Amino acid sequence: MSITARYGDPELTLGVVNETLAVQLAHRSVRKFLPDPVTDDELTALVAAAQSAPTSSNLQPWSVIAVRDPQRKARLAVLANNQRFIDEAPLFLVWVADLGRARRIAQRAGAPLDGADYLETTVIGFVDTALAAQNAAVAAESLGLGTVFVGAVRNRPEEVAAELGLPPHAVAAFGLAVGTADPAEEAAVKPRLPQGAVLHRERYDAESADSHVPGYDSTLAAYNLRYGLPGDWSGRVLSRLAGPQSLSGRHRLRGYLERLGLPSH
Amino acid sequence: MSITARYGDPELTLGVVNETLAVQLAHRSVRKFLPDPVTDDELTALVAAAQSAPTSSNLQPWSVIAVRDPQRKARLAVLANNQRFIDEAPLFLVWVADLGRARRIAQRAGAPLDGADYLETTVIGFVDTALAAQNAAVAAESLGLGTVFVGAVRNRPEEVAAELGLPPHAVAAFGLAVGTADPAEEAAVKPRLPQGAVLHRERYDAESADSHVPGYDSTLAAYNLRYGLPGDWSGRVLSRLAGPQSLSGRHRLRGYLERLGLPSH
Repeated sequence: MSITARYGDPELTLGVVNETLAVQLAHRSVRKFLPDPVTDDELTALVAAAQSAPTSSNLQPWSVIAVRDPQRKARLAVLANNQRFIDEAPLFLVWVADLGRARRIAQRAGAPLDGADYLETTVIGFVDTALAAQNAAVAAESLGLGTVFVGAVRNRPEEVAAELGLPPHAVAAFGLAVGTADPAEEAAVKPRLPQGAVLHRERYDAESADSHVPGYDSTLAAYNLRYGLPGDWSGRVLSRLAGPQSLSGRHRLRGYLERLGLPSH
Repeated sequence: MSITARYGDPELTLGVVNETLAVQLAHRSVRKFLPDPVTDDELTALVAAAQSAPTSSNLQPWSVIAVRDPQRKARLAVLANNQRFIDEAPLFLVWVADLGRARRIAQRAGAPLDGADYLETTVIGFVDTALAAQNAAVAAESLGLGTVFVGAVRNRPEEVAAELGLPPHAVAAFGLAVGTADPAEEAAVKPRLPQGAVLHRERYDAESADSHVPGYDSTLAAYNLRYGLPGDWSGRVLSRLAGPQSLSGRHRLRGYLERLGLPSH
């Protein structure tokens, strides 16, 4: 059952269950796709699900670019750390934190929009884009499609913006590759931290939460070993966040955003 | 059917449909709750759904505080713009963008974690927290519960952090009130922008997208009028983002984050 895979614990059960929860719990990242297309009906459903997500003050500060052109996908794959599956996936959705729409409305109205210059508004842009995209990802998986998020579109955001013709005040927040999973891919549901490590009652309890980390390190080291990967969880977190050199160019994000018209006062 | 309400267009239909999509499309914000409790089994399912969402490099940079204590909810309601429904909801989940766990691991290991000082890492924290929380919200709605996100926990983040005992390097990103919707609440599915305004093919097309805004303004003005609220969509966007004074104190977010140990280099 999927809850046991989710936590790498064969004894876990859930007291409630339904079709939606089953879809969510079964999530895994798909990085090998068959060439079968994603239909326009499916794309419409994904966008409707995305737009049904909550958005702060109904601002709707996001857009999505549906990329199917093989040449454009190939160029985006190069910009996003040469990840082959971006080429392979029949549909690559680029989710854009988009304050450009509001800026254009303000410009046409001759009204100020100085509130958009603050980090708060950039954060709302990224958060609302994420809420929307996660709804689309769950919708895709409910339709039997596979997905994977691609943060690497932030590695070279100015070039990605040029490729997609993004206006000022808009930034590609992340990509989502969508398609039919290749059953030949060796991958499974990745175990997460035990609930006790992330769920606190009434107040944050670091000591109790962190007591779950060593056990999870063992679970994940065993999981990684099955796929020929070395290391436990803590070691991977430390190497991922060691310093600016480990951020794949994204330590320059603040400067990039500023140049794209999204300052962070 | 819910797709027609979602776009305020009685002629729309979806070519594909299933139970998960139906749950997503039927989303509305609930701001009046009955006192019926949210059970621990339900909470476990919500957190399992949240942890099943994707997370960048498996960093899992978030925590969630489940608040049920009426006094604590009342204090949080005051800090979050005096919103009464936070008191009323039996469960208030505070979603925390949490680099504290990784910082503590680094500290115990005597390892550097300088990558966490960059805006990129703060953005990952907020984005991954949003992906997780949206899964929890959809899970809650699939179980028949009502929800509403509360961005106002960012109005006074240092006081919220103190109330919840948050460690350094952690910030309350947003709240999620969860409970049984009071059927007496007058509220409905809010129409969103037409798909043509947010969905682009291959490249961003501002002119085509913005051509949908005037029609949407009429749709939303009519919707608002039904609930006794003035104004169309564009006008509300402009007043929401007019300047620092319209951000409810959150124009100070960058300084707040810096003091909470989340600088934005």
